[in-house]
Amino acid sequence: MLPISSLQNPTMKLIRSLEHKKDRREAGLFMAEGLAMLDRAEAMGWVPDYLVATKPQAIFDGMKTTIVTDKVMTELSGQNNPHDVLGVFKQKYQPHPTKEGVWLALEEIRDPGNLGTIIRTADAVDISGIILVGDSCDPYSPEAVRASTGSIFGVTLVRMNKDGLMDLAKSWDGEVVGTASTAKHDFRRAYKSPTLLLMGNESRGLTPDLTSCCTNLVKIPMKDGVESLNVSVATGLMLYQLQPR
Amino acid sequence: MLPISSLQNPTMKLIRSLEHKKDRREAGLFMAEGLAMLDRAEAMGWVPDYLVATKPQAIFDGMKTTIVTDKVMTELSGQNNPHDVLGVFKQKYQPHPTKEGVWLALEEIRDPGNLGTIIRTADAVDISGIILVGDSCDPYSPEAVRASTGSIFGVTLVRMNKDGLMDLAKSWDGEVVGTASTAKHDFRRAYKSPTLLLMGNESRGLTPDLTSCCTNLVKIPMKDGVESLNVSVATGLMLYQLQPR
Repeated sequence: MLPISSLQNPTMKLIRSLEHKKDRREAGLFMAEGLAMLDRAEAMGWVPDYLVATKPQAIFDGMKTTIVTDKVMTELSGQNNPHDVLGVFKQKYQPHPTKEGVWLALEEIRDPGNLGTIIRTADAVDISGIILVGDSCDPYSPEAVRASTGSIFGVTLVRMNKDGLMDLAKSWDGEVVGTASTAKHDFRRAYKSPTLLLMGNESRGLTPDLTSCCTNLVKIPMKDGVESLNVSVATGLMLYQLQPR
Repeated sequence: MLPISSLQNPTMKLIRSLEHKKDRREAGLFMAEGLAMLDRAEAMGWVPDYLVATKPQAIFDGMKTTIVTDKVMTELSGQNNPHDVLGVFKQKYQPHPTKEGVWLALEEIRDPGNLGTIIRTADAVDISGIILVGDSCDPYSPEAVRASTGSIFGVTLVRMNKDGLMDLAKSWDGEVVGTASTAKHDFRRAYKSPTLLLMGNESRGLTPDLTSCCTNLVKIPMKDGVESLNVSVATGLMLYQLQPR
C-alpha cells in the first residue's frame, strides 16, 4: 500500500487538529512523538488509538501502523526534524487523589514546558500524582508532552478547582507543605507522610488562599536581589527533598 | 521630540540585529527587556549603551532614553506583548575562573531557556561563576536573558574549551563533582570546598572525557524507566546541595 501523502485523509485531519487545545479537549486525545517516548508508553501499559510512521515499526505488539510520507509526518509533527513515528493516545485523568505518599498540587501553572519538566521530575521521584488546580495549561499539549520526555505516561493526573483543593488540604492527614519567601524554616528538613505539596504559578507564586491551607511553610533561600526560582527548578528541589531515602 | 517610528534609524537597526547570534557576537552587545530586569542591572552596577522606551524612564540616574513608538518597540522586542523599556549592554566574560567557592562548568549546553534558568539558580545560590565549555548556546541570546529573569547581570561567566576545562579540573584544589547514573553515592551528601561542578548537556550528559576528570561522581536517584532529569532541574538540585548552610 502506498504511504498516505494527503492531509485531507480524515485520520490525518484529526491528528493535525490535536495541536489546538480546544480540539484536543473535544477529542480527548493527545499525540506523543518518537520511539523513546512510545517505548515508555508501551512499558506503562498504554495502547495508542493510532500509530503513524514513515516506515513499519515493531512496537505495541505489531499493532497496525499507518504509513505516511515524510512530508505528511513533518506537517503532523509541527517540528522541523520530526521523528519517524508518533502515537495518538486517550487522555487520562484520575477522578480523585489518594491520601497516600506524596501529591503535588500545581496552582494555575502557565507554561507547558515547565509543566512537562515538572511531570518528568515527579515521575523520577515516583510520587503518587499531580493535581492540576484551576486554570492550568494543558499537560497533553505537544510542548508539555515533549518536555515530559515520556513521563506523561508514568504520572497520575487529577484536575481540581481551587475549592476542591482547599477542602482536600483541610482534611489532609499528614503535612500540607508550601514555599514562601517569608517562611522561617529552610526547605531542607524532614516531612511527615503523606505529604501534599502546593506549588504556585510562574508569575505570582502560591495565592494567599492556598498559602493559608499549608500546615508547613518553608523557604528556599536565595541571595538578595533574586526573587524566585523557575517553578520547575523549585518544584524539583521540593520533590527530591520529599523523596523517601 | 517625536518618538522614533522607523526601523531604518541606525540605532534601531543595530538593536534589531541583536536577535542574531553572529551579530550579537560581532557587536559584543545584548538586549534586556523590562523594568524588573533593568532594575537588577542597575543594582549590579551595569550601565546600558542604549536605553530605549515608549515613555521616559527614571532609571540609570536619568540616563538619556531614546523614545520609540509602540510599533517599533514590538519589532525590537520580537515579543507579542513587549515591555515599555529595554536596555542594550556590553557582553561580559571574565578571562579565568577563580579557585574559590563553587564553580559550575556546563558542557555544550544547547537550549538557551535551560541556560537562562541555570543562570537564575546559580545567581540565587550565589556561586562564584559559570564556565561555558565548548560549543555552548549563547547566554546573551534574548531567550536565555529572559529565562534568567535578570540574573544574567548577577553571575560571572567564563568561556573555555574542553582542554582548558580538563586542565582546570586536574589542578583543582577541592572536589570536582559530576553526576552519573552509574555512580554509587547519592548526591545528597557534603562536599569539600572549593567545588567544581561539571554538568553535561541535554542529550548525552557529561562526556567520558569530563567524567574522567571528576574526583567524585554522584547519582541523582530516579525510578526505573526514567533516564534523566531536565538539565536545569538536575543542576538546581546539585547547586542547592552545594550551597553552604
